[in-house]
Amino acid sequence: MREEFRGDLLETGRLLVSMGESARSAMHNATLALMNADQARAETVIARDAEIDANYRTIEELVQHLLARQAPVARDLRLVVSALHVAADLERMGDLAAHVAKTALRRHPAMAVPPEAAGIIASMADVADRIAGKITLVLSGQDAVRAAELERDDDAMDALHRHLFELLLSPGWSHGVEAGIDCALLGRFYERYADHAVNAGNHVVFMVTGEPAQPR
Amino acid sequence: MREEFRGDLLETGRLLVSMGESARSAMHNATLALMNADQARAETVIARDAEIDANYRTIEELVQHLLARQAPVARDLRLVVSALHVAADLERMGDLAAHVAKTALRRHPAMAVPPEAAGIIASMADVADRIAGKITLVLSGQDAVRAAELERDDDAMDALHRHLFELLLSPGWSHGVEAGIDCALLGRFYERYADHAVNAGNHVVFMVTGEPAQPR
Repeated sequence: MREEFRGDLLETGRLLVSMGESARSAMHNATLALMNADQARAETVIARDAEIDANYRTIEELVQHLLARQAPVARDLRLVVSALHVAADLERMGDLAAHVAKTALRRHPAMAVPPEAAGIIASMADVADRIAGKITLVLSGQDAVRAAELERDDDAMDALHRHLFELLLSPGWSHGVEAGIDCALLGRFYERYADHAVNAGNHVVFMVTGEPAQPR
Repeated sequence: MREEFRGDLLETGRLLVSMGESARSAMHNATLALMNADQARAETVIARDAEIDANYRTIEELVQHLLARQAPVARDLRLVVSALHVAADLERMGDLAAHVAKTALRRHPAMAVPPEAAGIIASMADVADRIAGKITLVLSGQDAVRAAELERDDDAMDALHRHLFELLLSPGWSHGVEAGIDCALLGRFYERYADHAVNAGNHVVFMVTGEPAQPR
């Protein structure tokens, strides 16, 4: 029973690592598609989101199966429920990467992001990638991460988000309403991606260390 | 054991009804605050979001407790896991209502929504309220709802969302970038609120009828 539980948990962990890598790669490629008006890359990101969704459903089934057959308690139970939370966050991160890709596609062959905003958006993408990378490392057991570190990354993202809005609302913004709306929504996609990544990271920290995650 | 399970489940259901009513009332009041530049009402919505968050944590604890002590299987287990999904969606709906209230507050004493966009935003708020109302009725056992009905409401919301963007991007839009961005973000908040509401509704339909919900 115990060994079967460990086996199911290991399989869940493997799927989470795979989802984490996919969610990270999705946003990485969505950003490249956005910054280079790369239609093919944007379409690939959107198509591959179905794989992340499928992994999510598999984890949900695995967890329900595990709960039904093994009836874990105490720390094991919290571990299993945390896995469900992490999977839900990673699934949503995939959706947000697809939103970025769709924005690139909607403006193709034009660039969705004017040159003045490209630096901030690229920095937001860097922070998003950094957080997603940490989750994947911790999930695959290659590194430890502290909740405080994730909070710092999240603060960096919030500062960039504010900076972006200052730029969009400054009298010097000469790119009109459509580009302004696109950049505002892109900013929100990256910020939400980071929120979900930090949320997932906190659950992962708990899964690894037993320290409870703070709800966000 | 069985009776204890029913008791815990009933308590979870009561909390879900309360969360559903709070999430519905939050968006109703956020919309009123938005349309009337009503600072006090906006502040109340933001402050009360903490109650919804607290209910969510209580449901999480109740569900973990229930899983640990009762080890439900089959349909009972799916019911419990569904309750967790519904609670997560309702919690997020509360957040989105708070975002609408914050938008009203940021522009106070000015109106965040120019008159031309007020009709569409009000219609989005109506659809959001309609879906949230259906969930609460079904959760409290006062009505039945079919998944197809929720899909129609969601289609209505998507059509309004497209209509809003056509307005914001039309040559006739004379309210500049800031109002354009505010309205675009507001549109996204209502649309996401409805997505979560439909998602929650599908899980509730499953809880009541046993028909599986489609992941969105």
